Amino acid sequence: MIADATDAASGSFTNPAIRVAGAPGGIPEASDFELCDAQATEPGPGEVLFRSLYMSIDPAMRRKMPSPVEAPAPLGGQIAVGDIMVAGQTPLEHPLFAGHAGEVIASRHPDFAPGDFVRGGSGWQTLHTSPGELLMKLDCERSELLDELGILGQPAFVAWCGMERVAQVQPGETFVISAAGGAIGMAAGQMAKIAGARVIGIASGEKADFVVNELGFDACIARDREPVEAALDRLCPDGIDVCFDNVGGNVQRACFDRLRDFGRLVVCGMAGEYNAPEADAGPPLRPVLRKRLTIKGFVVYDHIDLYPVFRERMAGWRRDGLFRYRYDIAEGLENAPGALIAVLEGRNRGKAVVRLARSAHDGL
Amino acid sequence: MIADATDAASGSFTNPAIRVAGAPGGIPEASDFELCDAQATEPGPGEVLFRSLYMSIDPAMRRKMPSPVEAPAPLGGQIAVGDIMVAGQTPLEHPLFAGHAGEVIASRHPDFAPGDFVRGGSGWQTLHTSPGELLMKLDCERSELLDELGILGQPAFVAWCGMERVAQVQPGETFVISAAGGAIGMAAGQMAKIAGARVIGIASGEKADFVVNELGFDACIARDREPVEAALDRLCPDGIDVCFDNVGGNVQRACFDRLRDFGRLVVCGMAGEYNAPEADAGPPLRPVLRKRLTIKGFVVYDHIDLYPVFRERMAGWRRDGLFRYRYDIAEGLENAPGALIAVLEGRNRGKAVVRLARSAHDGL
Repeated sequence: MIADATDAASGSFTNPAIRVAGAPGGIPEASDFELCDAQATEPGPGEVLFRSLYMSIDPAMRRKMPSPVEAPAPLGGQIAVGDIMVAGQTPLEHPLFAGHAGEVIASRHPDFAPGDFVRGGSGWQTLHTSPGELLMKLDCERSELLDELGILGQPAFVAWCGMERVAQVQPGETFVISAAGGAIGMAAGQMAKIAGARVIGIASGEKADFVVNELGFDACIARDREPVEAALDRLCPDGIDVCFDNVGGNVQRACFDRLRDFGRLVVCGMAGEYNAPEADAGPPLRPVLRKRLTIKGFVVYDHIDLYPVFRERMAGWRRDGLFRYRYDIAEGLENAPGALIAVLEGRNRGKAVVRLARSAHDGL
Repeated sequence: MIADATDAASGSFTNPAIRVAGAPGGIPEASDFELCDAQATEPGPGEVLFRSLYMSIDPAMRRKMPSPVEAPAPLGGQIAVGDIMVAGQTPLEHPLFAGHAGEVIASRHPDFAPGDFVRGGSGWQTLHTSPGELLMKLDCERSELLDELGILGQPAFVAWCGMERVAQVQPGETFVISAAGGAIGMAAGQMAKIAGARVIGIASGEKADFVVNELGFDACIARDREPVEAALDRLCPDGIDVCFDNVGGNVQRACFDRLRDFGRLVVCGMAGEYNAPEADAGPPLRPVLRKRLTIKGFVVYDHIDLYPVFRERMAGWRRDGLFRYRYDIAEGLENAPGALIAVLEGRNRGKAVVRLARSAHDGL
């Protein structure tokens, strides 16, 4: 079935992949990853073999990597040195949390046929043999496949869950979003604009301009150009109603200290702390009482029930021209480590994605 | 109208009161208070003169006192050295937040007549001339007046608001309550029991026994007999679902660190920190994300709408014999400072109250 399988007799064949080669203490380096062959197998009964065309790169991947110090394991557990690096949830429980969008090559599941586009898979690898139940069939054009990892995929859905289930922003409120130019930030900020809030982003320089000029945020603090604290005082003189935080650390603290009465700190991600073995101390909780604040964390895995609603809502916004999104595409699996490092260093320009092949038939 | 008014010609007369004489850095001392005469006036049109029979003593009063260092003012503002000390909300906006239960002496308001029992007033003083709108007429026996400051008053209502609006405890959950023998703790813990939770109190020695033996909590940690951390590990091996915290500091932190997935930290009071000018650093917020925690502060003033529901619910529980409550009564206004100091040191045995007179006609 697979033309150039290297070991057709055993039913397994070459599957370019990347495994973890080190347990970085801080931001990982290229040497913490290495190319390898994950081997792929012919699909068994109920299984589907698909080839990834796009792989998602997200800051939270960093937390899955092994750590040189003892730390609480992330949801789904940690991977070890030597394991294939992961994109998306592990173990994968629902295709919504998969890391790839691709094309079916072979199927022994009645719902899938070669040529179908699907979302699924989690390893940093080219080929995936997956139970059909863990694939989502995508009714889209090839040109729209990228959106399944972005504006219609997990990052924008994460933003939506945080807005619906936690932030509940009201018209006229002041909404501050960190990592505003990132995959989640772009989406959350635009959702807050649509809800009628005044939206202030926090991002690194080039992204700050993009966020204001292209996404239409009211302002964006370029955190490499001025201190976040002073900028918040200038832009939010009456304080902040909602801080939707993706980074933790000092940025989170600066926002927390400026929350108004009934303010909400939505803890969506702590990208700035994923590389640090020691957790930063939190803010004093006295203002939580005096100002009646809410600090609330959420994890998208708990909110699958909202996905169809989100998808419908997003379709409407796009139809009405209300929503923009940007991708930062790295070419080729071998550039995935660099793409992750760029995301962790805040150098990505939009939702980071790796294009694994320009066509489903390239290189196989 | 007033038999022994000292200055009947001017319409004002003696009104024993206590004013603030110092700005304590830590727990106040007796010398931070002094007896004085607040003077009282005949009621004007729409006003009522009443004599307090019972005055509430609550830990949050400490926050109203002047501080030797700069700190954010409490809700309603701070009082200054020389001001009359306050019980309840200042400025008083609703009789629910008043500090006294007493008997009307004279009235120029159509809804009130001499002999009526009322809740109202906020100063640490004997007589109060108040707009009728800021009094709540109490349809009760003299023997039930005390309950208006306790089981039917602000402390139990605070507990109820925290349970209804924040904790939302479910049957089978593990509920930990600090200052369990205090005015709020006694009530919140019993409400959690009624809701079907397993309830663990934290209190100082003698109160710990009372909380278990008389209120029926499942267990109570005597924090002066064993370290809270070890006791929580022993009593809550699977973690805590809700921590209803009245004290802040190390006790709050010990509970926070043991919250389970979807756990809630209800920030109701921070009695242990009211005496400290510097706010303690808070817990690291990483677990908020990983464990999807909620930290939420609330202030009873925002929830007046719930009061009639609370009162009806509490009446039902008392009718069914489900609710117990204990008062720690100091005799005479001159013992109010000692009662407040005892509360701040955790030496009170039940809801602290000062009895100002055994009868409405004593000493006037």
